[in-house]
Amino acid sequence: MKKYSVIINADMGESFGQYKMGQDEELFKYVTSGNMACGFHAGDPTVMKNSVASAKEHNVSVGAHPGLPDLFGFGRRRIDVTAEELYNDVVYQLGALEAFTKVEKVTMTHVCVHGVMDPMVSNEEIYCDAFLKAIKDYNKDLVIVAESKSLLYERGKSEGLKLAAVAYPDLRYDDDGNIMIERDKKPMDPQEVARQAISIVKENKLLTVGGKEFEVKADVLGFHGDQDNIVEILTTVRKALVEAGIEIRSF
Amino acid sequence: MKKYSVIINADMGESFGQYKMGQDEELFKYVTSGNMACGFHAGDPTVMKNSVASAKEHNVSVGAHPGLPDLFGFGRRRIDVTAEELYNDVVYQLGALEAFTKVEKVTMTHVCVHGVMDPMVSNEEIYCDAFLKAIKDYNKDLVIVAESKSLLYERGKSEGLKLAAVAYPDLRYDDDGNIMIERDKKPMDPQEVARQAISIVKENKLLTVGGKEFEVKADVLGFHGDQDNIVEILTTVRKALVEAGIEIRSF
Amino acid sequence: MKKYSVIINADMGESFGQYKMGQDEELFKYVTSGNMACGFHAGDPTVMKNSVASAKEHNVSVGAHPGLPDLFGFGRRRIDVTAEELYNDVVYQLGALEAFTKVEKVTMTHVCVHGVMDPMVSNEEIYCDAFLKAIKDYNKDLVIVAESKSLLYERGKSEGLKLAAVAYPDLRYDDDGNIMIERDKKPMDPQEVARQAISIVKENKLLTVGGKEFEVKADVLGFHGDQDNIVEILTTVRKALVEAGIEIRSF
Amino acid sequence: MKKYSVIINADMGESFGQYKMGQDEELFKYVTSGNMACGFHAGDPTVMKNSVASAKEHNVSVGAHPGLPDLFGFGRRRIDVTAEELYNDVVYQLGALEAFTKVEKVTMTHVCVHGVMDPMVSNEEIYCDAFLKAIKDYNKDLVIVAESKSLLYERGKSEGLKLAAVAYPDLRYDDDGNIMIERDKKPMDPQEVARQAISIVKENKLLTVGGKEFEVKADVLGFHGDQDNIVEILTTVRKALVEAGIEIRSF
Repeated sequence: MKKYSVIINADMGESFGQYKMGQDEELFKYVTSGNMACGFHAGDPTVMKNSVASAKEHNVSVGAHPGLPDLFGFGRRRIDVTAEELYNDVVYQLGALEAFTKVEKVTMTHVCVHGVMDPMVSNEEIYCDAFLKAIKDYNKDLVIVAESKSLLYERGKSEGLKLAAVAYPDLRYDDDGNIMIERDKKPMDPQEVARQAISIVKENKLLTVGGKEFEVKADVLGFHGDQDNIVEILTTVRKALVEAGIEIRSF
Repeated sequence: MKKYSVIINADMGESFGQYKMGQDEELFKYVTSGNMACGFHAGDPTVMKNSVASAKEHNVSVGAHPGLPDLFGFGRRRIDVTAEELYNDVVYQLGALEAFTKVEKVTMTHVCVHGVMDPMVSNEEIYCDAFLKAIKDYNKDLVIVAESKSLLYERGKSEGLKLAAVAYPDLRYDDDGNIMIERDKKPMDPQEVARQAISIVKENKLLTVGGKEFEVKADVLGFHGDQDNIVEILTTVRKALVEAGIEIRSF
Repeated sequence: MKKYSVIINADMGESFGQYKMGQDEELFKYVTSGNMACGFHAGDPTVMKNSVASAKEHNVSVGAHPGLPDLFGFGRRRIDVTAEELYNDVVYQLGALEAFTKVEKVTMTHVCVHGVMDPMVSNEEIYCDAFLKAIKDYNKDLVIVAESKSLLYERGKSEGLKLAAVAYPDLRYDDDGNIMIERDKKPMDPQEVARQAISIVKENKLLTVGGKEFEVKADVLGFHGDQDNIVEILTTVRKALVEAGIEIRSF
Repeated sequence: MKKYSVIINADMGESFGQYKMGQDEELFKYVTSGNMACGFHAGDPTVMKNSVASAKEHNVSVGAHPGLPDLFGFGRRRIDVTAEELYNDVVYQLGALEAFTKVEKVTMTHVCVHGVMDPMVSNEEIYCDAFLKAIKDYNKDLVIVAESKSLLYERGKSEGLKLAAVAYPDLRYDDDGNIMIERDKKPMDPQEVARQAISIVKENKLLTVGGKEFEVKADVLGFHGDQDNIVEILTTVRKALVEAGIEIRSF
């Protein structure tokens, strides 16, 4: 009988100074890995230290979540950086986060790109290559988290790097198989998210809003702390995964 | 016969974006080690990458030059950070710089604190302890560059860390043995700087502006790229050191 | 019979980009004047525009809330700026906020200093003078909000500037008459705050935690949106003020 | 006989903290108007204060030079701001600069957009409209400096705003009439620049690198302080303008 397993992942450490963001304290109880902001689009050295310490305490894998240098825009506004700048910005952020894993004596396991840097690196050749070179030069054992249909996933694989495919059961997909960016998020039904999660892991299929099925591969299920009912979602999903015989693991 | 040796050091990598600072291209030919700004008071990821690459090319030891987070003030305005913030700011900057040494396949050998963070860490107990803990936690093999008479030097030594004593032959010392901060620097006579350098290394003595002698220890001679005649100074000093039988080495 | 009146004031516009802070939407219903952050310690151009538009809608007087340039520290970490820098930083922020009052066709009525810049400007001569010069040079009709016992209040008055005395009924005062800075704020009893407010306005007396009375003068009562029960406090205070025959007015 | 006159203009105030940029001290002797950076892509409050004071001393008209919020990129990297953000960023910068003209008791006469914000505002409808609305709302008497062939120029005129046409005799134009962006600028021959300047003002024609002629309108001739021989260029141009009977005026 085939064994299934999956990593539960979320973006974390997005507070800045006196500004709080997200529900990290809750999330740490339910995820098995976190992508930590590195001080460019969110996060600061003190937030990073505390996030890594909390991750250690909760036995959560720590990954880097590099973004564009734009705190005001939260890394969601495209900036026409050069490929060289992107390479350097990524290397800088990897080092900054890894420093906190060193002082906390844990391992930085993975990297997952934030915000608008994600489509840039996932699908645009010059940025994709700059990012892959950054990982290769910095530490080729870092696992790159990417959507399985992306250029990043394919090219990374073909260059011998470690890739983990990610899908997002708490987001809606349109009938072209793309994530829908919704300004005013309608809340997701936890049962529906759980069904999507199991379908993704066991059937390699995700369901679009129009009822189409898309093939998908996922080692990692990504969730979002800005969902108001994220705790209910994660509780429901975890229960459903276990009942479906899917092992929940970390990196 | 006693053998003498010394490291020639300068602050580097202080440009930011389109803003150029210092004379790094010249300095790289004459120093054996550089302290690289890490993006808080000066420097940026692209400057850091290029500085580390140049250091490698010129066989110059690379160290971190962490400072307070104040680009406008160039790290020279005291900010009442907490000890915890200072610890985290230092760890972050160490990691960021080390990232570029990793991609360039060189070793980050040392750390030397910048600007107003220097007296804070050198002489104020809570900051001194926070800084030493940062080094111990991050990498206890990093050499800490500090003045031999500082609390930082003493306490670091007593805690078993690696310390390198530094003195500054191209700065004037007052009759209490303290460096004089001069807003409008009068240029230094290269021959005088050379004599001071040799006296420091061989006699363990430095001469103050009033003609007093102070005891000093120096494994490292620090020089400053904002001296207009720094190239002439370094040429003269290097020649004099060699003639005096002092070996010029790197970390 | 003596007529009493008072202005109800709070700090506002402290969000930044995606980071939300405070309860401005609620506060706008209860205050008659707001101090708007100007982009240095908090606030950004879009927050400023929207805050001024909301103030206009609610008929709330708009004032500037300049702070030190330290978003991470939220203007609460002392920075050793020069008097010249403080002057220039204040002028810059006044102009930036006034720009939004111009496009919204309202008047910028007052200025109230934020965070650690407050004690610097209130009590340290060189910063006090630099600040007063900034107001005089920029617009001597701006009302300066300051504690009545401060150097700023006295010296501003003696130089012919417009001062409004402020007291804070929702903060605790120690037995020396100074505001107590409490990291973990114990919630305030709304009835107690109301009694303090009326005592301040009618008797010119405030009660300390130890039960002492201090003389105080107040044209303005300042409240704080980071009190969880601020809406209850303001409702209670407004009702009590009206019942005590005190007119609530704006600048 | 027809009378000709022209304004001589340059970008100024682009230093930041300890970082120096440009040759403002020289430029102030030769220009009749300056566009001052406002702290987003360059400049800081202290630089702005000093630049406005110098402009006053040299009888140079002061204008705002708003840019995108990107100090590292010097406002030259496109950021996908919303139209609302651009409006707010422009209003903020106008107010910040005008504050310094108020304390120096001079008039802010004009506005000229910096870097990549220039093509965005000049030719893209949503940004053009947002910018024009900012000027209309803030102060419709501000003169907008724009190329005569731009959408900004046409639409601004048709909305009743004040426009000044600008051309750049110290830059090369390609055979489509567009300015050539040259990474490594070849120095310009001062005599050639002078001929181009006179042709622009008197004949309304500019000469391209390929020898074509383009129709152009110019109330303002813009020059660039990053030309190494800018002093020689401006001396030569001013002499030639006077000999050609063209009056040099300010705004």
